[in-house]
Amino acid sequence: MSATDDQIRHVIERYVALVATGTAAEITALYAEGATVEDPVGSDVLTTREQIHAFYATLEGLEQRTRLIEARIAGGQAAFLFEVATVTPDATFVLAPIDVMTFDDAGLITSMRAFWGPADMTTA
Amino acid sequence: MSATDDQIRHVIERYVALVATGTAAEITALYAEGATVEDPVGSDVLTTREQIHAFYATLEGLEQRTRLIEARIAGGQAAFLFEVATVTPDATFVLAPIDVMTFDDAGLITSMRAFWGPADMTTA
Repeated sequence: MSATDDQIRHVIERYVALVATGTAAEITALYAEGATVEDPVGSDVLTTREQIHAFYATLEGLEQRTRLIEARIAGGQAAFLFEVATVTPDATFVLAPIDVMTFDDAGLITSMRAFWGPADMTTA
Repeated sequence: MSATDDQIRHVIERYVALVATGTAAEITALYAEGATVEDPVGSDVLTTREQIHAFYATLEGLEQRTRLIEARIAGGQAAFLFEVATVTPDATFVLAPIDVMTFDDAGLITSMRAFWGPADMTTA
């Protein structure tokens, strides 16, 4: 049986929370074996657990706040708009990507594709 | 050369405007030959021009207002959140899907996938 909308919503909420405060290991644990990450869309697709872990490890040292703005779930897949604010001594950088995710039957993420471009980064 | 971000943004804006006030023929003209439409995600994929035209023809009799809320463009593809308000004598129904589109080099839409579920429909 495929993941329910409630399961998927829970994973999205946890993902967004962990991007702010979680470790790379915690985020990677949301992904299924064989999952892929394309962030941003058009960049090289990450295909191994090591690559995905390394990708999220770059966030670990940063002070970040996140919030889920809108999520749409359909056919066992999801698209959601969320905001990541990265606080530095000089400025706060805000990026609000739209992520598209697919899930396996257990609710683990099987693919993530993040839609954003350099022009979408603002300072607050 | 693939479609530029500006071209893609223009197509998205035109698409959202035409969903409100355009004909099915005008909307279908935004699609490339061989394009596919999956609305909502998880439903049968429309694969012919006739199917796509018939899908948008169902909107023609309705009084609708639309607005583009957020658009993200990356790698020649786009994800965008927009709102469709359908006005009836009894109530106004509001749906705000997240659509994901791919484009050909000329900026014609090659695929559209709309993320929304019944729970996302509200009355205003």
